Amino acid sequence: MTDFTPPPPSPLLIVISGPSGVGKDTVLQRLKERDLPLHFVVTATTRPPRPGERDGVDYFFVSREAFERMIAEDELLEHALVYGQYKGIPKAQVRAALASGKDVIMRIDVQGAATIRRICPEALLIFLTAEDEETLLHRLRQRHTESEEALRLRLATAKQELAQMSTFDYVVINREYALEETIDTIIAIIEAEHHRVPHRKVTL
Amino acid sequence: MTDFTPPPPSPLLIVISGPSGVGKDTVLQRLKERDLPLHFVVTATTRPPRPGERDGVDYFFVSREAFERMIAEDELLEHALVYGQYKGIPKAQVRAALASGKDVIMRIDVQGAATIRRICPEALLIFLTAEDEETLLHRLRQRHTESEEALRLRLATAKQELAQMSTFDYVVINREYALEETIDTIIAIIEAEHHRVPHRKVTL
Repeated sequence: MTDFTPPPPSPLLIVISGPSGVGKDTVLQRLKERDLPLHFVVTATTRPPRPGERDGVDYFFVSREAFERMIAEDELLEHALVYGQYKGIPKAQVRAALASGKDVIMRIDVQGAATIRRICPEALLIFLTAEDEETLLHRLRQRHTESEEALRLRLATAKQELAQMSTFDYVVINREYALEETIDTIIAIIEAEHHRVPHRKVTL
Repeated sequence: MTDFTPPPPSPLLIVISGPSGVGKDTVLQRLKERDLPLHFVVTATTRPPRPGERDGVDYFFVSREAFERMIAEDELLEHALVYGQYKGIPKAQVRAALASGKDVIMRIDVQGAATIRRICPEALLIFLTAEDEETLLHRLRQRHTESEEALRLRLATAKQELAQMSTFDYVVINREYALEETIDTIIAIIEAEHHRVPHRKVTL
């Protein structure tokens, strides 16, 4: 019997990364609204919620003690201490979603993406970037939630992170006033990867 | 000066391949109608035109003598003798289109695609397949242009060609009554490849 079609694709582990202020949260939010068959990972963090953020939806807001217990019990896919606060991806959640056959998508900082790549070479890494420094700085300022010193630190970190762009699988420029274009491109990348041979086979 | 964006992508050399009857011509025709910024390669062939085919649009219909002169003068990117007739891709046409910055797309049989891969490892190879043998045989019969013996030969060849699927970059199932889905997938693949790092850098 001749096989006319390739084996069905395994679910993808999709990582949306990039410097602070580049629009990762907005992009993930808009992807959610498109009602795609994606599992959106909920990150655990020790930082306090920003206005409007909901526990268990935007993040799992946990105490430092609870977070350190998860680290000790190896319950995190990756974690990092960013600007004095822990962030991490609960392993069990990702495994369960992949096992259900759904593509899994998560936003994560550039340092975390490098960790995911090491643990899971078959992860699909997408780097979001801004068109230039002015745009990024403008977006960081719009948040109104940080001191000028914190902004300068984020911008310096962003510049270091941009050097990591070439280690990702795809780079998407999240242009001002072109969010839908960014979303369409990310959806096209996911669609294309479902047809790649050999297919990425994620094991965690 | 920090680079916020990757270098602009170089034009792609896109090859649509797959067994006879899988729908390569229909897919290319429909892609043309979508009015995308693609250069559609016109293949040179020594076979006589089928009803409705136009010289210089569907193919360059050339004499055997003219074709053999092109071979001798190394004017073809690849050529093959298929069912007793020559088919080939004029080199100059592809180089000119790539130099103008346009992605170049061509349909080619599976044997020809293997040649393109050898000459140009950075070519983007898409394998079109049917859902099963019955569908492929049905489509071949619908052409009403070939003897039963020719049909059987094409089906036997198709089965050998399916074994080459895994050497392509992408596999797309061109399902019955789902041509637009096939076209959308191919467009998504091209869009995704414009964001790949490192980008395919075609040299011919």
